[in-house]
Amino acid sequence: MHLTAAVRYELIKECTRTSARAGILHTPHGSFETPIFMPVGTQATVKTMTPEEVRELGAGIILSNTYHLYLRPGSDLVREAGGLHKFMNWPHGILTDSGGFQVFSLGPLRKITEEGVRFKSHIDGSEHFFTPEKSIQIQMDLGADIIMAFDECPPYPAEREYAQKSLEMTTRWAKRCRAAHTREDQALFAITQGGMYADLRKESAARLVELDFPGYGIGGLSVGEPKPLMYEMLDATVPELPKNKARYLMGVGSPDCLWEGVERGVDMFDCVLPTRVARNGLAFTSHGKVVIRNAEHARDFERLDPECSCYTCRHYSRAYLRHLYKAEEILVYRLLTIHNLHMLLNLMRNIRQSILENRFQEAKKAFFDKYGEEKGQ
Amino acid sequence: MHLTAAVRYELIKECTRTSARAGILHTPHGSFETPIFMPVGTQATVKTMTPEEVRELGAGIILSNTYHLYLRPGSDLVREAGGLHKFMNWPHGILTDSGGFQVFSLGPLRKITEEGVRFKSHIDGSEHFFTPEKSIQIQMDLGADIIMAFDECPPYPAEREYAQKSLEMTTRWAKRCRAAHTREDQALFAITQGGMYADLRKESAARLVELDFPGYGIGGLSVGEPKPLMYEMLDATVPELPKNKARYLMGVGSPDCLWEGVERGVDMFDCVLPTRVARNGLAFTSHGKVVIRNAEHARDFERLDPECSCYTCRHYSRAYLRHLYKAEEILVYRLLTIHNLHMLLNLMRNIRQSILENRFQEAKKAFFDKYGEEKGQ
Ligand SMILES: [Zn+2]
Ligand SMILES: [Zn+2]
Repeated sequence: MHLTAAVRYELIKECTRTSARAGILHTPHGSFETPIFMPVGTQATVKTMTPEEVRELGAGIILSNTYHLYLRPGSDLVREAGGLHKFMNWPHGILTDSGGFQVFSLGPLRKITEEGVRFKSHIDGSEHFFTPEKSIQIQMDLGADIIMAFDECPPYPAEREYAQKSLEMTTRWAKRCRAAHTREDQALFAITQGGMYADLRKESAARLVELDFPGYGIGGLSVGEPKPLMYEMLDATVPELPKNKARYLMGVGSPDCLWEGVERGVDMFDCVLPTRVARNGLAFTSHGKVVIRNAEHARDFERLDPECSCYTCRHYSRAYLRHLYKAEEILVYRLLTIHNLHMLLNLMRNIRQSILENRFQEAKKAFFDKYGEEKGQ
Repeated sequence: MHLTAAVRYELIKECTRTSARAGILHTPHGSFETPIFMPVGTQATVKTMTPEEVRELGAGIILSNTYHLYLRPGSDLVREAGGLHKFMNWPHGILTDSGGFQVFSLGPLRKITEEGVRFKSHIDGSEHFFTPEKSIQIQMDLGADIIMAFDECPPYPAEREYAQKSLEMTTRWAKRCRAAHTREDQALFAITQGGMYADLRKESAARLVELDFPGYGIGGLSVGEPKPLMYEMLDATVPELPKNKARYLMGVGSPDCLWEGVERGVDMFDCVLPTRVARNGLAFTSHGKVVIRNAEHARDFERLDPECSCYTCRHYSRAYLRHLYKAEEILVYRLLTIHNLHMLLNLMRNIRQSILENRFQEAKKAFFDKYGEEKGQ
């Protein structure tokens, strides 16, 4: 153990009526207020954006993908370039996932054993073998501030027996990851699993907490299950996690899930949604979703979101955004990404403020009254 | 005639050994130093860029396309939006072409008569009819600072008889355009034609100069002819044009053509090249062209152009740009566009400075010694 951990969670304030909490995540590349939303930069770029733009929107830490960077351009190349921060010109926080979720998503293209996972590249079909040790080596090459243990993520639905065996292997793999991890300027977070079984969720969390990691991911959620079931699993998991460590709900980031996750004590989120839906002409606004390609916006010279202060909303009309979308102009993907990221990052700032002022539940209700989606759906 | 013209060319300095000249173009949306390169924003956006970024690179006036905006989103919609400047968030200079070049490029999809041109939309095959009056009406709806007369652009090669008849019709159309043009906050430039016949080029210029337009386009060049032939046509045309009016070489903007055009007395250029080649991973650098996808750049951690001070060159390596290109990430199109536009806009500033300091020819030689392409090719 190091005298000073690379990454440390500082609890600032707890909500008196829910499990929501405000804190600060200290990393070698800056300290960031939590709860926090991490934009996703899968291939060493947050799609369409410069790093300066991402930072200006208020993002402090981004997520990048071990699986994708290992395949292209190669983690050895990124190491030669001086690490991911330097390679992609992002001097702030970075978290890399372990590749576990990606290789398991490949379905029939992969084979799991106790040793690791054999899989084929989605790019060229070449064969590769990830072990916990290999995932850690790649993540040390990439050099993120927070790296994740290599886990097995069961599909949904999964039999109880499968979920039980899977969490046990994930625990053994977490130990192997820790043994393989030698960089002192990174923190290794474990990932709790357990399928959709509340008692297995508790067991997974308890066993990993015993191993005393500097932070915990909550994996295997948002994989197709109904949202109430996901919230149930959070209710089972989070109370098992120590208060002095960050809790990270992986791959989740729609506005409603952010509120529900924070309410249950989650500190960190990531999601491709705001960047991915921009590609499809979709915007999250304070009044719900807007599909910009729709004909109703053709002559709508008002802003995308009347209550938003982002660059896009300040300078462009819905009619212009729709024109760009119909004309397939790249600028529209940028403008919608800016808006969507601003919306989520600003939402997290507002959520945090509501916790500090002990009015989280009122703020949540006010949000959904306007946003129009039902709480918990 | 108006007492104060909407657009005025001010001659500042003439080269003593060539026809190169430095000036200022005064427009209702700002005064811009010439010779000038105008980035192209075909569909009311300079591809991948925000207007602020285009401006930061030093662009003062951009070109947009009547044909494209008429078809999508519709010039009536742009007028309702408050005009093109407001619609696209560009408060500086705009020039619109007349649509002539685009409808003639459609080939078998169009039919030309004295009255105008019937053509089919490249988007949905719908039928449209452009007359000189219609082109002017559309351009008045768009509201650019400089608009262009509707011309006939002969193909290359074209028979002398065709080129002769064409320039005569273009002259008659120029008169009709002028009669149809009523907005006092725009200037209507005529377009000289004449195919690849020096005497017809002179005749076209002389007849349009008689009509006393506030500026002159040189059209029908860079349509497939060898560059020396294009320069010959410039040599025939430019001396016929008045010194107190701007001269605009349409659709031309490779680095070598900029030098050659300025040397022959051209003040304004536009070209899709810097934005279009970015899409193909091509960069213009001080040492010639760089194809970023090439394997040689995979582990090249140096900047794209060691002598360039643009955002891209300051922050990213060739290896990173190549990675983005291979991964088909939109950011690379932005980064290469930034570099290419910076390169051309900076080149024009350097050319202008060399004219002011009466060392144009020396500067030209120094450029090509490094850039590596032969003068005049
Ligand atoms: Zn916005
Ligand atoms: Zn550059």
